[in-house]
Amino acid sequence: MIPVEEARSRILQALAPTAAETVSLAAAWGRVLARPVHARLTQPPADVSAMDGYAVRAADAAEGAVLRVAGSAPAGHPFAGAVGAGEAVRIFTGAVLPEGADAILLQEDAEAAEGRVRVGETVRPGRWIRRRGLDFAEGELLLPAGRRLTARDVGLAAAANHPWLAAHRRPRIGILATGDEIALPGEPVPPGGIVSSNAHALAALVRANGGEPLVLPIAPDDEAAIAEAASAARICDLLVTTGGASVGEHDLVQSALGPEGFALDFWRIAMRPGKPLIWGRLGQTPLLGLPGNPVSALVCGVVFLLPALRRLSGSAEDPAPRTARARLGAALPENDRRFDFLRARLETTAEGDPLVLPFPVQDSSMLKTLARADALVLRPPHAPAAAAGEAVEIITLEDLGV
Amino acid sequence: MIPVEEARSRILQALAPTAAETVSLAAAWGRVLARPVHARLTQPPADVSAMDGYAVRAADAAEGAVLRVAGSAPAGHPFAGAVGAGEAVRIFTGAVLPEGADAILLQEDAEAAEGRVRVGETVRPGRWIRRRGLDFAEGELLLPAGRRLTARDVGLAAAANHPWLAAHRRPRIGILATGDEIALPGEPVPPGGIVSSNAHALAALVRANGGEPLVLPIAPDDEAAIAEAASAARICDLLVTTGGASVGEHDLVQSALGPEGFALDFWRIAMRPGKPLIWGRLGQTPLLGLPGNPVSALVCGVVFLLPALRRLSGSAEDPAPRTARARLGAALPENDRRFDFLRARLETTAEGDPLVLPFPVQDSSMLKTLARADALVLRPPHAPAAAAGEAVEIITLEDLGV
Repeated sequence: MIPVEEARSRILQALAPTAAETVSLAAAWGRVLARPVHARLTQPPADVSAMDGYAVRAADAAEGAVLRVAGSAPAGHPFAGAVGAGEAVRIFTGAVLPEGADAILLQEDAEAAEGRVRVGETVRPGRWIRRRGLDFAEGELLLPAGRRLTARDVGLAAAANHPWLAAHRRPRIGILATGDEIALPGEPVPPGGIVSSNAHALAALVRANGGEPLVLPIAPDDEAAIAEAASAARICDLLVTTGGASVGEHDLVQSALGPEGFALDFWRIAMRPGKPLIWGRLGQTPLLGLPGNPVSALVCGVVFLLPALRRLSGSAEDPAPRTARARLGAALPENDRRFDFLRARLETTAEGDPLVLPFPVQDSSMLKTLARADALVLRPPHAPAAAAGEAVEIITLEDLGV
Repeated sequence: MIPVEEARSRILQALAPTAAETVSLAAAWGRVLARPVHARLTQPPADVSAMDGYAVRAADAAEGAVLRVAGSAPAGHPFAGAVGAGEAVRIFTGAVLPEGADAILLQEDAEAAEGRVRVGETVRPGRWIRRRGLDFAEGELLLPAGRRLTARDVGLAAAANHPWLAAHRRPRIGILATGDEIALPGEPVPPGGIVSSNAHALAALVRANGGEPLVLPIAPDDEAAIAEAASAARICDLLVTTGGASVGEHDLVQSALGPEGFALDFWRIAMRPGKPLIWGRLGQTPLLGLPGNPVSALVCGVVFLLPALRRLSGSAEDPAPRTARARLGAALPENDRRFDFLRARLETTAEGDPLVLPFPVQDSSMLKTLARADALVLRPPHAPAAAAGEAVEIITLEDLGV
């Protein structure tokens, strides 16, 4: 059994980001930049007014002064002339500051009547002016390659005049559920069988984390069928199997794929849930074999598949899921040599701090418990017993779309 | 000026969830259930083995005993007979427990040879058996209406045998940017003009939060053009405008829409950034008029549009964005009467606690600063001065896809 950290690092080492494609700005949210975004213009392009009011010469605009209104400068319609001595120009937020003016008299401090305006409060030079380039300057690096685009980034790329962006292609993840005992929802279930839940749960995890899932037909426990289904691997950036990863005679993934050119890296990890986990390569395609238990499959999905997706997608963020700290709501016993990921509810204390409550029963077949969990509590190998109130590391599931 | 909380509650009050549509389980991630999901079967359907090993009668399976292997029970292929005295049946994880057996002898505690198996460690009755219904029972409520489906929920609905789900239709949000001074990225920019960033940033926010954005062509500052564009409102669940919301003569949204049947509820909010904010109804369609400044538009998007999306989508979660607590990395002055949303970076202290650092310049035109922010610091009206190290409420932007 190899440690969780080592397994993750061997998985990440074997993966490279997908190539770039052109995406429209309108479709760029959540995509990972393959090339940096530089500003194509300076923003604002000139000194502009930060408020509605009057562009004035501060020297003329002491309290009580009366100025002649020489014109108007709405946003998008710059005033053609200059502001002379004793003059003001009506101006609106975002409009270019007219020549000669060096400050803005706020609308609420101005009394306008018959082409003149009376200054209600002395104006300081430079007041309410946004300087050219306050936001960014032409050529400036705004968004680095490897950045997963937020809504704000999309706005920034738009403001910098980019209708198109270069993004890494969404990693295509083949998902192959195996087992004679499983059937798709709504289809006839064999005697003693169950309805398959892993493939579509993992597909959702892939989609939530920027990948493109390809759900393959279920393969029965038959070497030829698994080998045929696995041929779909050629068009995938990563093939994920579920089931068939443990040491049972009926766990055929390893033996079925050998003749297809499968090269195993490792297949047992010191973690709970999820000990049997295959990592290797099927021809050119990396293969991640997840356990068949639905809870194990999803927890291993968070711990290994999600980092793999981040690496494949070209994201510069830390591939490991972000952890946070929370106080334990109940004591935990000493841990054994397997890294434990406990399903837990999250509450907030009266003081507003997060409190985490592991479920008392942690069986890896209990999908309902997992669905009701808010977080996984991380218990490293040989972690000492922890009292209620102690701080532990957690992974918040909902933030991962999982 | 009305308070932020009151504005949000008036917005939410005016909105109702969209109707239901049928969605495939494969497309259900992130959708909000319009009807609850009940279990269509019991899981596991019978007592099953939790491990690979041998199904035995515990009374026969003391350390050192040798049992006759009467058959095999892989998952999906139940053993047809019963386990008699002195017998064992080879069994695999998830397989139905054969009649007569009451415990599992672990594979690693068994020594098999020539049709017999030697017990390496005494087996307790009931050991390594998952009882029928351990996960859920037929008819049980698994997922309530109003739940936004996670990957885990998709797995649970699959396991409960649902190929189809009833979800609320994605709210369709019309987005209308107005202003003579703005042009789409890559298109010719008028003199003194800027490139439009709000529409696509808001569209990304809508998409990130389960809505379907409809980006309308930019409307120039011309009443007829705005009125025409607003006619698209009829097919939207909500129309969002940006720009034109303040009191300037060139802020035409209010005046242009009056003749089209626009009924104003309120238009000024005690917040910064974002004082000018219109809320009303255009015919049957609610209308949210956001400020034209890109930072104001996005912050108001987080504070008002995102809750509106949650309400329209039928989600039972708290519509207001979730807040967390962090220590201030720098002192803040006393706040005035406007609710302040400060753009800030988030760091982690050596002790692993979140530390929040507001940017020193908070100008509402600085989109680059917003893009580099991790969080908004909430400063309620008249908040007293806060020293470095004090705890404040924050909204983490990335978790919202914003």
